[in-house]
Amino acid sequence: MRLTKLKTVPLQKVTIRDAFWSPRLESNRTVTIPAIYQRCEETGRIDAWKLNWKPGMPNEPHVFWDSDVAKWLEAACYSLITHPDPELRKTVDTLTDWIIRAQQPDGYINTHFTVVRPHMRWKNLRDWHELYCAGHLIEAAIAHRQATGDTRLLDALCRYADHIGRVFGRAPGQKRGYPGHEEIELALIRLYHVTGQERYRELAKYFVDERGRQPHYFDLEARERGEDPADYWAGSHEYTQSHLPVRQQREPVGHAVRGAYLYCAMADLAAEYQDRDLWQACQAIWKHLVRRRLYVHGGVGSSAANEGYTQDYDLPNETAYAETCAAIALFLWAHRMLQIARRGHYADVMERALYNNILAGVSLRGDTFFYENPLFSRGQHHRWTWHRCSCCPPNLARLLASLGQYIYSADREALYLQLYIGSEAQVRIAGVPVQVRTAVALPQEGRAELQLQPQKPCEFTLALRRPEWCRNMEVSINGRRAAIEPLLREGFVHLRQAWRPGDRIEIEFDMPVLRLQAHPAVRENCSRVALQRGPWLYCFEEADNGGPLHDLRLPARAHLQPRFESNLLGGLMTLTGTALRRDLDAWRDALYRHVPPELIETPIKAIPYYAWDNRAPGEMLVWVLSK
Amino acid sequence: MRLTKLKTVPLQKVTIRDAFWSPRLESNRTVTIPAIYQRCEETGRIDAWKLNWKPGMPNEPHVFWDSDVAKWLEAACYSLITHPDPELRKTVDTLTDWIIRAQQPDGYINTHFTVVRPHMRWKNLRDWHELYCAGHLIEAAIAHRQATGDTRLLDALCRYADHIGRVFGRAPGQKRGYPGHEEIELALIRLYHVTGQERYRELAKYFVDERGRQPHYFDLEARERGEDPADYWAGSHEYTQSHLPVRQQREPVGHAVRGAYLYCAMADLAAEYQDRDLWQACQAIWKHLVRRRLYVHGGVGSSAANEGYTQDYDLPNETAYAETCAAIALFLWAHRMLQIARRGHYADVMERALYNNILAGVSLRGDTFFYENPLFSRGQHHRWTWHRCSCCPPNLARLLASLGQYIYSADREALYLQLYIGSEAQVRIAGVPVQVRTAVALPQEGRAELQLQPQKPCEFTLALRRPEWCRNMEVSINGRRAAIEPLLREGFVHLRQAWRPGDRIEIEFDMPVLRLQAHPAVRENCSRVALQRGPWLYCFEEADNGGPLHDLRLPARAHLQPRFESNLLGGLMTLTGTALRRDLDAWRDALYRHVPPELIETPIKAIPYYAWDNRAPGEMLVWVLSK
Repeated sequence: MRLTKLKTVPLQKVTIRDAFWSPRLESNRTVTIPAIYQRCEETGRIDAWKLNWKPGMPNEPHVFWDSDVAKWLEAACYSLITHPDPELRKTVDTLTDWIIRAQQPDGYINTHFTVVRPHMRWKNLRDWHELYCAGHLIEAAIAHRQATGDTRLLDALCRYADHIGRVFGRAPGQKRGYPGHEEIELALIRLYHVTGQERYRELAKYFVDERGRQPHYFDLEARERGEDPADYWAGSHEYTQSHLPVRQQREPVGHAVRGAYLYCAMADLAAEYQDRDLWQACQAIWKHLVRRRLYVHGGVGSSAANEGYTQDYDLPNETAYAETCAAIALFLWAHRMLQIARRGHYADVMERALYNNILAGVSLRGDTFFYENPLFSRGQHHRWTWHRCSCCPPNLARLLASLGQYIYSADREALYLQLYIGSEAQVRIAGVPVQVRTAVALPQEGRAELQLQPQKPCEFTLALRRPEWCRNMEVSINGRRAAIEPLLREGFVHLRQAWRPGDRIEIEFDMPVLRLQAHPAVRENCSRVALQRGPWLYCFEEADNGGPLHDLRLPARAHLQPRFESNLLGGLMTLTGTALRRDLDAWRDALYRHVPPELIETPIKAIPYYAWDNRAPGEMLVWVLSK
Repeated sequence: MRLTKLKTVPLQKVTIRDAFWSPRLESNRTVTIPAIYQRCEETGRIDAWKLNWKPGMPNEPHVFWDSDVAKWLEAACYSLITHPDPELRKTVDTLTDWIIRAQQPDGYINTHFTVVRPHMRWKNLRDWHELYCAGHLIEAAIAHRQATGDTRLLDALCRYADHIGRVFGRAPGQKRGYPGHEEIELALIRLYHVTGQERYRELAKYFVDERGRQPHYFDLEARERGEDPADYWAGSHEYTQSHLPVRQQREPVGHAVRGAYLYCAMADLAAEYQDRDLWQACQAIWKHLVRRRLYVHGGVGSSAANEGYTQDYDLPNETAYAETCAAIALFLWAHRMLQIARRGHYADVMERALYNNILAGVSLRGDTFFYENPLFSRGQHHRWTWHRCSCCPPNLARLLASLGQYIYSADREALYLQLYIGSEAQVRIAGVPVQVRTAVALPQEGRAELQLQPQKPCEFTLALRRPEWCRNMEVSINGRRAAIEPLLREGFVHLRQAWRPGDRIEIEFDMPVLRLQAHPAVRENCSRVALQRGPWLYCFEEADNGGPLHDLRLPARAHLQPRFESNLLGGLMTLTGTALRRDLDAWRDALYRHVPPELIETPIKAIPYYAWDNRAPGEMLVWVLSK
């Protein structure tokens, strides 16, 4: 069977109207995107493009600054697509001009290596971020063309990509290098699709194929710098997923963001080149990840030491790294897996990451950010206005600004509804333009309704995802219940018929409060449950429950009442009930007791995880004791 | 009321004969002490005393090496007191000669600062260990005189102490310094008692009084070295308990070993000088420690980062630092508190530390050692043959070799039995020589029997500790039950009468399997219990129970059967029973489930904590889930 990818329904064709998401996207557009630009300005990241930094001046351009600005630009361009804004357009144009002017005669674009260490260009692919920055600039340029129609930035980036294609490769005189921080690979594949230029796809393939070959390029270039490769600070090439050729890899290892960007490109290339070995590697790594290394909030990468993976089932709560960028990268990889495999499972993981880990990355106001996303806090973990390593805010901004393109996919004869987000889309299926209107009642109610307006009656498959959190899903077509079991395949309900203008599909989701248990080998969570309702993971905050939260015991039969609280944190669904805890007063001073006090009843309230740390500092707990 | 200290019944006067302890002490004498000497030799620690190290040679003497050798010498001398051994005596004599010959004309003794950095003598009291090493040498010299009667080493150390007394103090030209690593303070008080020279006690008092005064000496000396005090690697003077004058301190902070040695000296000086402020500080720090910062195995210091204290109730299991030396230092401090306050509680803590954390510090064979003592291990934590920082093995060796002196204390009219260790002691009470024979049936049975042989009938109080692990204790005198409640005071049963030769006191201890709960604020242990029987804390090992151990659930009513297993690990008491765990086979591949499998029954076996890691590597767990 051929590996073919579903087509994304592009951002221009989708309008989101959703009670849950619209306020979040509005805050992304009106608060987050301007706030990030302002911080890029304050920290010198914008001025860096003027290339007038000199030694001794403040704000020395850092090796990863270009990527921060590129991601902001990408976010701003997506925002312009859905919400034209002359003020923002002016800022985008000015910045674009500076970037174009910063291009060197040979096509090279990088602020750090142009003004700070020009002699070190391409000398340390392992640790510095040149190709990573190039990748983000390419993605920004694609978004810029998409938003403005102006091709100047894209042309500049093509010249840069061509320069990179001359520097790297297997021909004599070329460097056989590849990025220490992956990203350019997936960007080059996008560039190929935008320009139709085969050489960009080939260059992506070269970077992926070359990775992890012996003799190891990062060792060779370390020796050329006069360093002993044994002194590599990260200790192992697992950190950059270059410990083995990619087709031999079977587990997610090393830095979690790098890994997921690589796996994105591997999935893309598997479909581009019908490369079954690559696809098998993707599937094996994925399976290992979701079975042993995925946090319940959709986060990946347990450890701060390598910003990445450790061992199987090592998923500590308080010290969880679970970088916002890593969950975003996982979302992007899962989207590619979904589009190739057409399995709802991948959308389940996208949803888990998006509604929980990713969305927690930004405050409800939109102006402070989490870099790390623990599942327990003693009250010391708070969002930053800016992080020394500020990759997450613009990454989050570009994902939210482009959210529309992740809702639907299509191929020639099917329309897939992947994420239940209220929206209107224009698609073309079986050659017929179709308007789809999806209304979603989540989180208040487990209901959604689609209305189809094909330009003329037209047969195609409407594939509706059955979410993993939903045990029973009922589907009615024009008021008539469909028996869905026979239509279920790979997590999608496949409705195939000749659709007519005005056809209505109603969906009822069973949306109970789930008590998730983790695998017995996840040490910290034995005897604990995590609460989930719909796609939302819940947590307990000290503000609602007092402390210590670890001692709350949720009786197995305790009823948890979902309730929409419009006055709490801008309006959200809470879960309330009664739990037990040891009586701190009766416990008194002892540290250890063998005759402990009785358990006392206590009212409890859980809020969605994404909304934590928007009130007074205090403890936060996801995994609550089950009694 | 005067602060008076009970008198220790010295090592010469006590012979241990105990089913549990005698094999451990034998292995200390025949395996541990020789093994440590051999490793000191192999690593150059012995040769360092020849002072012929030159730059470029291997085995550069390190700033703390002298203390390792001093503690070994102290251990060896204690061993000579209880077990004369011509071979060991020869080694001791040779080493003693080298140390004496290493003394400089001005009295100074230190291998590192004599041959490696002579120009840096007394230049960094904060980080280097000169005064700490001096303290251990003084303690070794006292033990040496006690064991051999030879005063040459003690004389040399008096000359060194006099040199130190000339260098440090408040007179013009003297340095107003004090040690970064406490120890010399308590050694000087011992030196005062051995020599009767008031100046040593005064010097100890100076060091304690001067600590933490402003301007801060460690900052002044840092500036003299051309360093910015703000660059202090430890970040805060809490690390060395010099953040405040000692009388203002109320919490245990910083490096745990340093802290407890300081608190030893503070307790000693409180009694020496009737210093109520010092005593209040000791009591406040103690109370804070045992209520909020003491591990259930008697360990202290949660964190590797500072080898010490963190926050209240922060007692993680897997990353517990709980250095063996810190538990030893706590034991020594508790002993002093006990001797001043005459409260059984302090002996309870001594016992908790001794039977668990401290004893786990050495393997059953006696030749490998724990530096850190976690309460959970995934199987990666094993004893070392030698640690780069090898303070613990000789510290443990000297404690075990001198264990006899911690069993009894006395004052003019009372004999205190502090630790239930089978032994025979010669004491003098109310002017009458009394022989005490204590037979102890622990751990098999909760029984002990004392036989008194006063040289003539004599009235005195026999104070028998009621251990905290014993809810009911019965005492019979010559077969007649005593009603103990009226006789109980501060954890001791006070039996006062005219004792006659041959009087027998029988004690029956209730020794149930206790299920300890930790305070609700101890995050990791909510819903978990630790098993204790008598003074022994228990743990589960993978070798007996399979894994993952975190998922074992002990039903509240499950019977746990104590049984002596003579063929297991040299013979020890196990606890066996039936617990529950999730069925790993039924669980299959999922990482999270909301409909988990039923719990299945599983036989379990717990062994005493001190005996863990003496078999195949695997998980170890102290705090087991309570169902």
